Amino acid sequence: MRNGDATTIDVPATSADAKGKAPAGAAPIVATTKATKYAKGGWRRGMAIFDFILRLGAIGATLGATATMGTTEQTLPFFTQFFQFQASYDDMPTFTFFVIANAIASGYLFLSLPFSIFTIVRPHAVGARLLLLILDTAMLAMTTAAAAAAAAIVYLAHDGNSSANWNAICQQFTDFCQQASSAVVASFIAVVVFMLLIVMSALAMRKH
Amino acid sequence: MRNGDATTIDVPATSADAKGKAPAGAAPIVATTKATKYAKGGWRRGMAIFDFILRLGAIGATLGATATMGTTEQTLPFFTQFFQFQASYDDMPTFTFFVIANAIASGYLFLSLPFSIFTIVRPHAVGARLLLLILDTAMLAMTTAAAAAAAAIVYLAHDGNSSANWNAICQQFTDFCQQASSAVVASFIAVVVFMLLIVMSALAMRKH
Repeated sequence: MRNGDATTIDVPATSADAKGKAPAGAAPIVATTKATKYAKGGWRRGMAIFDFILRLGAIGATLGATATMGTTEQTLPFFTQFFQFQASYDDMPTFTFFVIANAIASGYLFLSLPFSIFTIVRPHAVGARLLLLILDTAMLAMTTAAAAAAAAIVYLAHDGNSSANWNAICQQFTDFCQQASSAVVASFIAVVVFMLLIVMSALAMRKH
Repeated sequence: MRNGDATTIDVPATSADAKGKAPAGAAPIVATTKATKYAKGGWRRGMAIFDFILRLGAIGATLGATATMGTTEQTLPFFTQFFQFQASYDDMPTFTFFVIANAIASGYLFLSLPFSIFTIVRPHAVGARLLLLILDTAMLAMTTAAAAAAAAIVYLAHDGNSSANWNAICQQFTDFCQQASSAVVASFIAVVVFMLLIVMSALAMRKH
């Protein structure tokens, strides 16, 4: 009754108190059982709460990446040797894939929140954690692929490649490149969070 | 004794036979216990064997990707408008990263084989599987990043990009592009294997 998390385990102590005939020797035993049970459930529950917080952070990162890349657009105020004077994210198929993949990842993360809450309520549930682990693994691969592909293009836009005769467009489209780079960084943050989520799910699922 | 895998579990039945006074009613009970125990250990052991086979396949895929990309080189027999008439994988920083990442992944997979064998010998070991799962997750991210970044560059080499004024070099360097594409496909096979390995480790680790 002193701790809201351990209500069910407190029940024997409460009934003993109500009867008013709890033996002095019984108290430490009850306390020990309660502490062990609480520590086990609490460890898994703490992990489930951290899982929930990480998912909220990952939603922020993927939504930020989607929005930043999706609004990446720059019109140059002067004439250059280029045919086009406007650069948009959908000029690059890789950036389009990046926006779609990050939007899917943020949608998945939002839908996974109820399952994460379920593991907080029932820290010993294995099925929900296994489902989340499998889907998290798929999403890790998708988000990493999107972030790495966009990073390769952003790198090329910054430095160009003399062998292939691809010139660095970032000298003209500075804002475009900065915004795309920010989106890539946000997406890589989501990748790290997905890796943490997978390892934490596995830790919480393992038998002793 | 009939089955080499279930030696330790056969012991009670054997001792009962040796005493020659096993009651008729006891036989089904022993058989049931043995079957359950064997099914549990065998299920995890079968998964560990499959894990080992998958790792061998992934070694082949990553080694193949490394070797294919590492030998990607083409000298053109005729003059074009390009400054360079030779294309090599190390002209592209992304392809260099691809070769290094796949080499690291194949090295890791080779070093992980003893741990995989350990989980075959001891199907209920959790520590080894947890270690493999954490490292597999890291390697999944690295291999996916390498494969996706190389795929983005190969795509660009095939199709070019008119907005950025990057031309398709694959029209000249056909062999170069074909070899790079094969390496990317091999690397994506390794990505799928890593995803399977992670999910299988989690399945084998979970408590009932």
